[in-house]
Amino acid sequence: MPQYPLLHRIDSPSDLRRFERRDLHALATELRAFLIESVSKTGGHLSSNLGTVELTIALHYIFDTPDDRIVWDVGHQTYGHKILTGRREAMSGLRRFGGISGFPRRCESEYDTFGTAHSSTSISAALGMAVAARDRGDSERRSIAVIGDGAMSAGMAFEALNNAGDTSDVNLLVILNDNEMSISPPVGALTKILARMLSGSTYNAARRAGEKVLGVAPPMLDFARKVEEHVKGLITPGTLFEEFGFHYYGPIDGHDLDALIPTLQNLRKLNGLQFLHVITRKGQGYKLAEADPILYHGVSSFDHRAGIQSGKGGGKLTYTQVFGDWLCDIAARDDKVIGITPAMREGSGMVRFAKEFPERYHDVGIAEQHAVTFAGGLACEGFKPVVAIYSTFLQRAYDQLIHDVALQNLPVVFAIDRAGVVGADGATHHGAFDLSYLACIPNMVVMTPADENECRQMLYTAYRHNGPTAVRYPRGSGMNVRPESAMTELPLGKGEIRRQGRKVALLAFGSLLTNALLVGEEIDATVANMRFVKPIDAALIEELAANHELIVTLEENAVIGGAGSEVARVLESLPHRPRLLRLGLPDHFVDHGDQSQLFEQVGLHPAGILSAIERIYVRNS
Amino acid sequence: MPQYPLLHRIDSPSDLRRFERRDLHALATELRAFLIESVSKTGGHLSSNLGTVELTIALHYIFDTPDDRIVWDVGHQTYGHKILTGRREAMSGLRRFGGISGFPRRCESEYDTFGTAHSSTSISAALGMAVAARDRGDSERRSIAVIGDGAMSAGMAFEALNNAGDTSDVNLLVILNDNEMSISPPVGALTKILARMLSGSTYNAARRAGEKVLGVAPPMLDFARKVEEHVKGLITPGTLFEEFGFHYYGPIDGHDLDALIPTLQNLRKLNGLQFLHVITRKGQGYKLAEADPILYHGVSSFDHRAGIQSGKGGGKLTYTQVFGDWLCDIAARDDKVIGITPAMREGSGMVRFAKEFPERYHDVGIAEQHAVTFAGGLACEGFKPVVAIYSTFLQRAYDQLIHDVALQNLPVVFAIDRAGVVGADGATHHGAFDLSYLACIPNMVVMTPADENECRQMLYTAYRHNGPTAVRYPRGSGMNVRPESAMTELPLGKGEIRRQGRKVALLAFGSLLTNALLVGEEIDATVANMRFVKPIDAALIEELAANHELIVTLEENAVIGGAGSEVARVLESLPHRPRLLRLGLPDHFVDHGDQSQLFEQVGLHPAGILSAIERIYVRNS
Repeated sequence: MPQYPLLHRIDSPSDLRRFERRDLHALATELRAFLIESVSKTGGHLSSNLGTVELTIALHYIFDTPDDRIVWDVGHQTYGHKILTGRREAMSGLRRFGGISGFPRRCESEYDTFGTAHSSTSISAALGMAVAARDRGDSERRSIAVIGDGAMSAGMAFEALNNAGDTSDVNLLVILNDNEMSISPPVGALTKILARMLSGSTYNAARRAGEKVLGVAPPMLDFARKVEEHVKGLITPGTLFEEFGFHYYGPIDGHDLDALIPTLQNLRKLNGLQFLHVITRKGQGYKLAEADPILYHGVSSFDHRAGIQSGKGGGKLTYTQVFGDWLCDIAARDDKVIGITPAMREGSGMVRFAKEFPERYHDVGIAEQHAVTFAGGLACEGFKPVVAIYSTFLQRAYDQLIHDVALQNLPVVFAIDRAGVVGADGATHHGAFDLSYLACIPNMVVMTPADENECRQMLYTAYRHNGPTAVRYPRGSGMNVRPESAMTELPLGKGEIRRQGRKVALLAFGSLLTNALLVGEEIDATVANMRFVKPIDAALIEELAANHELIVTLEENAVIGGAGSEVARVLESLPHRPRLLRLGLPDHFVDHGDQSQLFEQVGLHPAGILSAIERIYVRNS
Repeated sequence: MPQYPLLHRIDSPSDLRRFERRDLHALATELRAFLIESVSKTGGHLSSNLGTVELTIALHYIFDTPDDRIVWDVGHQTYGHKILTGRREAMSGLRRFGGISGFPRRCESEYDTFGTAHSSTSISAALGMAVAARDRGDSERRSIAVIGDGAMSAGMAFEALNNAGDTSDVNLLVILNDNEMSISPPVGALTKILARMLSGSTYNAARRAGEKVLGVAPPMLDFARKVEEHVKGLITPGTLFEEFGFHYYGPIDGHDLDALIPTLQNLRKLNGLQFLHVITRKGQGYKLAEADPILYHGVSSFDHRAGIQSGKGGGKLTYTQVFGDWLCDIAARDDKVIGITPAMREGSGMVRFAKEFPERYHDVGIAEQHAVTFAGGLACEGFKPVVAIYSTFLQRAYDQLIHDVALQNLPVVFAIDRAGVVGADGATHHGAFDLSYLACIPNMVVMTPADENECRQMLYTAYRHNGPTAVRYPRGSGMNVRPESAMTELPLGKGEIRRQGRKVALLAFGSLLTNALLVGEEIDATVANMRFVKPIDAALIEELAANHELIVTLEENAVIGGAGSEVARVLESLPHRPRLLRLGLPDHFVDHGDQSQLFEQVGLHPAGILSAIERIYVRNS
C-alpha cells in the first residue's frame, strides 16, 4: 500500500471530485504530510502551502476545474494545487533545473490558468477571464482569484476591485486568504481594517455556525447582517469590499472543510461579484512552521522531523547582508538616512535596521510605486532615502523612478538586490532587465559591484552622490572579499584594470568579474572591472580599444540594451574600433534551476565565455 | 489702472495673505478672468484650472507656503498657483519653448514642492514630506496633497493612504478635489462610492451651514456624525477614508470661499491625518467650459468670447485617429477584439469605438497596471485585447507587461500613442523610452510606423500575430498618407529600402523617415524604412553594411538602448563593419515647446541630421 493512499488515487481534480466528502479530511492530512516531506527534500515555499491545504482541496472539489478558472495570486501557495492536478510525482523536481516551477505556469498545466509570482495580479487576470466568459455567453463558468491579505494591500488589487465593481454581469469570486502575513509581517491600514473585521461578532458567529449560517440564502443573510451592524454600531466586517460592489461572505475558518465546502457550494451558484473572506494560518499543521512562519516561508532542504537548524555558522556573507550592515552603519552616522522596503524586510536584509532604527524604517507594504515616490518626497526635504528592492520588483515602480526621482534629480539610493540570475525562483524573479531599463534614464548613476567590499563602497558612493543612484547586486554570496569597515567614495564613472593581458580585453560589470579573471588567466586577456554602467568609463574603453583586438563585455543582464550596449556606443565614436562581443542574458526568459546550472545554460560560466570568444576570435583573427 | 488690479498686487503668497478676507471673492473673479484670457492665448489646460481657483486662493491664504508643502496631483490644475506665486507675467510663455511648464516643477519655483504630471503621486510625496517634518521635529509644518477623484482611483493613491494610515505622528492633509471627472468621464466603483457620499445628508447640511458645522471642534463633530450615521443607517460619507485612519471632513463646496477658508483654518490647527472632501466643477465660471469640460480640458489658443469653434475641417488625420478608425474596423470584423483604455478615451481616439462597441470598450480608470493584466486575462481566453496607452503611461505597467503578457507570450496588442517628442506637455509626457524598455523584453514584437497607412497595417499585423506586440506612433499627424481601407499583414521583422543611394545608409525607425528621405536626397544616401525594432531586420542591415561606409540610425527614442542599439548588435556580428552613427533623443530630459522646435533642439530635423553626418563623415573619410 502506498504511503499516501488517498493522494495516490488523484491524478486530476476529477478523481478528487469522486471522493466522498467525509474522506476529505483524511486527504487533507495526507496532502499536508506529503507537502512537508516533499518540500523538506527539495526546498521551496512551505508555510504558505500548509496554509492553503484545505482551501485547495475544497476549490477543486467544488469547482469544475480547469473549466472554472482559478488564479492564484503570487502563486507560492500552489504546491497543493500542483499535487492535485497531476504533478504529484513531479514535486520531487520542484524548482530544479528541468523540473516543475514553484509558481503556476500556463505552459506547465491547463490547471495553471495564469502565471503568477509577483503579487496582486490575480483579480485583474480573473476579471479578464470573467469578462471573456460573459462575452461568449458562458454563464456557467466561474473565475476565481485567491489573494492573500498582503497582496490585497497593493494598489493593483484596488484598481482591479474598482474596475470589477463597475463591470456588469460578470461572475467573479475573490477569495481573500487572510493569514495576517505577507512575507514580512503585515503593515498598513488595511491590516487594521481586516483585524477589526475579525474582532466583530460576525466572525465568531460564522465560526460557530459554519455551514449553517452560510447556508442561509445570501441576500437574506446580507440583510440580516446590515441590520445587526446598524443596531450594534459595529464597524461593518464587509464594508470596504461591499463598497466596491462585492457581496461579502465570511470570515470563515479556512482550515475547516465543513465550513469551506458548503460555503463554496453556495457561492458557486451565485452570479455576480462575490467576495469570500477566509482565515488561514501559514504553516498550519506543522508546529515548527506555525511557530515561525517567516523562517519556514521559503526553505532549503532540511530534516522535517528536526526542523531547520539555525546558526549554520561559517557561511559566506551574502550581498544582502553586506547591504543590511552598510545601512545600519550609515544610519548610525547620519540621522537623515531612511530605509524603505516594500514588504521585504527579511529578503532585503533589513531585520537589524528595523530593530535598531525603528523610527527610520519604513515597510510600506507591497507597494513599490508608493515606496519610490515616498522616497522622492523625503529626498525633497533633505533626507537620504534608501529604497531596498529586488531588481524584478523595481519593474513595478518604473514610472515613479523616472518621474518622481530621476527627472527631479533627487538623491534616492536604490539598493537593487537579486540582480541577475536568482536560481530556483526562475523567470519571474531573475533580475534580467534593470541595467537596460535604468541605463536609458537621464541623471541615473548605475553601479555593479564586483565583490562584497565594492558593494559596500558603492552604496556609500551612492549615498554621497547628490542625485539618483542604483547599486545592483546579485543574489547570494560573492567572492568572499570581506567588506572593510571604512567607507570610501569611489570616483564616479571610473573602472579599473584588474589584469593586464593582450589582444582580448574582458570588461566585466559586476560579479562576473570572477569568471572574467579565470578566463583572463586562461587566454592571457586583459580584465577590467568596469564598476559603472552609467556613467560609463569612456576613457578606459578608449584606452583598451587602442591596444586590443577584441573587447568582450560581461554582464548578468539582458544583452539587449544592457551595459555592453553602452560600451558599444563608446566604441562607435572611436576611429579605431576593435571587434566587440557582448555576453549577457539571452533574448528569451530563463527558467529556474541552480544558479550555476543557469550560468552554464546561458554561457556565462568560464567555459562558456571562453568558447564564445573562441568562436568569434579564432574565426576572424 | 491695470486690468487685474488685485492680481497685480500679488507677487507671492505673502502678498495674498495681506488681503482682507472680504476681498478674496473679487480676487477669485479676477484670477478666473485672467486664466481664461491667458489660456485662450497660449493654449493649455483650462477646465481643471477654472475648477480650482477658490481652492488655490484659500490654500495659499491659509497655509504658510512655501514652508507648508502643497503637492498638486497631476499638476494640470496649477496655473492659478503659478499666477499667485510670482509667475503671472510668465503665463504668456506657458508651455512654450523656454517658457514655464504646464506642470509644477521644482526647478521653476520653491512653491512647486514636487514635480507632477502623471496621476496619483501626490499622497506618496506629501507623506514623505510629512515624515521628514516629523523626523526633524517640526510639528508646525503642514504637508498637503490635492488630488482629484480620478487620480484617487489609481492603485498608487490607495497604497499611499494605506501606508499613511500606518504612519504615526505625521501631519498630512489630503484634499480630495471631487469634480466627478478625470480627463475622461469617471469610471469605477469609487465613483459610485463618492456619489453616494454626496447624496447623503451630510453634504447638504455642510453646504448649508458652511463655516458653522465645520467650525465645531472636529472630534465632537466626528462623534456626532458617527451617531447620526448609525441612527439613520446611512452609508457613511467618510467611511472609506476613515477606514484608512484619516479624519474625514466634508464634502464642502469648493467654490465657496466662506466654506473653504474657515474649514482650512480649522484643519491647519489639527495634527494627524486629515481628509477634506471638496466638491468643485471643472470649467467653473466659464459657461462654455462648464457645458463641455472635456472639450475645454486641454485647448489650443482660441477666442475666449466666441469659444472653441468645432469642425475646423480639412485637418490632417492624426495617428490617434488612424488607430481609432482601425480599432472600429477590426472590431467590426472580429467580435473577439476588446478595446482597453486607462481613462484616456478622448486622447487615445476611442470615442467612436466606445459608442459603436460599448460592450467591448473598457475604460478601467487611471489604472495602467490593472489594464495590462486585465488584457492578459482576456488573451488567455482567446480574446484579442488592444491596450491603447501613451508611451509615457505604459511605464506605469512595465512589470505587468513583462510578466502578465510577454513572459506568458499572450497576444495583447499595445497601441502606443504619443511616442517620441510630444511638444507642449514636456518632459513628463514625451514618449522617450519605450523602445529601450520594450526591446529588452523577450517575445515582444515592436513596430514603428513611418506613416499613417503603415500604422494601420502594423496594427493589423499586430492583431494577427500570436504573441505580444507593440505599435508605437507619434503625437499628431504624419506624412498625409491616407490609410488604405484594406488591411494587409506586413512580413514580420522586415524593413524596406525606400531610396537607393551610396556611401551613407539612413535607417529610419518610424516617422523620422520623412526627414531621412529629405537628407537622403541632399547627400544621395540610401534610406531604409526599418519598420521593426524587434525583431530587427538583420538581413537588410547586413546588405546595407556590405555596400555602405556609414550607417545612420534615426529614432524618436532615447539613443541609449533604443533601435540603434539593436542595429549595432547586428553590425557587431559582421566581418565587415561600417561605421555607425546613432541619432535619437539625448541623455537628458527634453523640455516643452513646439514639436518642431524640440526636433531642432535635439538635432533630429533635417539640418541636424545632416550636420551630425558631416561631423563624423567628413572628419573620417
